[in-house]
Amino acid sequence: MDYPSKLIEDAVNEVARLPGIGKKTALRLVLHLVKENEGKTLALTDALSKMRANIKFCKICHNISDEEVCFICRSHRRDKSLVCVVEESKDVMAIENTAQFIGVYHVLGGIISPMNGIGPSELKIESLIQRIVQSHGEVKEIILALSPTMEGDTTGFYLNKKLKDLPIKITSIARGVPVGGDLEYTDEITLGRSITGRTLFN
Amino acid sequence: MDYPSKLIEDAVNEVARLPGIGKKTALRLVLHLVKENEGKTLALTDALSKMRANIKFCKICHNISDEEVCFICRSHRRDKSLVCVVEESKDVMAIENTAQFIGVYHVLGGIISPMNGIGPSELKIESLIQRIVQSHGEVKEIILALSPTMEGDTTGFYLNKKLKDLPIKITSIARGVPVGGDLEYTDEITLGRSITGRTLFN
Repeated sequence: MDYPSKLIEDAVNEVARLPGIGKKTALRLVLHLVKENEGKTLALTDALSKMRANIKFCKICHNISDEEVCFICRSHRRDKSLVCVVEESKDVMAIENTAQFIGVYHVLGGIISPMNGIGPSELKIESLIQRIVQSHGEVKEIILALSPTMEGDTTGFYLNKKLKDLPIKITSIARGVPVGGDLEYTDEITLGRSITGRTLFN
Repeated sequence: MDYPSKLIEDAVNEVARLPGIGKKTALRLVLHLVKENEGKTLALTDALSKMRANIKFCKICHNISDEEVCFICRSHRRDKSLVCVVEESKDVMAIENTAQFIGVYHVLGGIISPMNGIGPSELKIESLIQRIVQSHGEVKEIILALSPTMEGDTTGFYLNKKLKDLPIKITSIARGVPVGGDLEYTDEITLGRSITGRTLFN
């Protein structure tokens, strides 16, 4: 596409690098900014650059944080014996939104994925082991809350192998038919596993 | 939703103000920036703020431009007697992409829409009249290329009323069944108008 201005073209190219945003959407967003007054664009670029420059990662759980230690790790109300292992910060947000979990987290920062060149050493696995060892028995259970995908399973197996000699219980979030789901439309693998992994009807 | 950081929250709120981007998409984009190195975010914010600060509008046709007069109005290859009237800069890009038009443009900067509080005085209509008058007969035809909507039709009628006493021809882009479209699935109004507005099969 021909752009009427080099400035527009540069802006479109930068916006189109964001995931899920193509050139057409990027152009629409950029033209929207041109239509609005300059303050709106300044507010946007300020918020983004401030965020990127000042964002920290909690030195205990590696979750996104405004301070050295995140508000979950700082809280006295959270059960420090229960550590939920997740891939990304967005998974912490998703679990926090359920308001069902009172423990703390450990954010791996990704998932083992040889296809994308991500091995165990790229993830915060060593830090998890250190955290458990250095807690001197305070950490009693690790809940693996990883994606139900090939990569998630691989990461789970690897973690289990690494952690199984430590004096902790290792559990995984339940997998099965989603609440509100229809059996007829559930895929065979999920349905099959929900039968082999059946629980007592109490 | 609860965000792990005020910085993230501010960034998400700003990104979510863009059209067609909700909180979830905004969060995904912001977390993507957090994952990438800081240079990427700087490149994005730089491109946007530079674009917004330095963007100009052509003083002849009001299209987006890097200079006082846009490259279309400056070109000696364009037919200055033919002025295509469009709503927005993106319409200019769309028409330029067809490579079928050799004339110049006039960007109204919007469309008459009483529902959104946009009247004729908000648009570059007076400037169009001045442009035609001051061309001393150079402008011979005005092509109305407005959206085939109620607002587009209203703007077309208004322009026709304003321009009809000037010594120019006023035309409108053809409306009818789109190329590659299926008659069966064309809506009644378009199909009806394509019959009343039939052309000679030459």
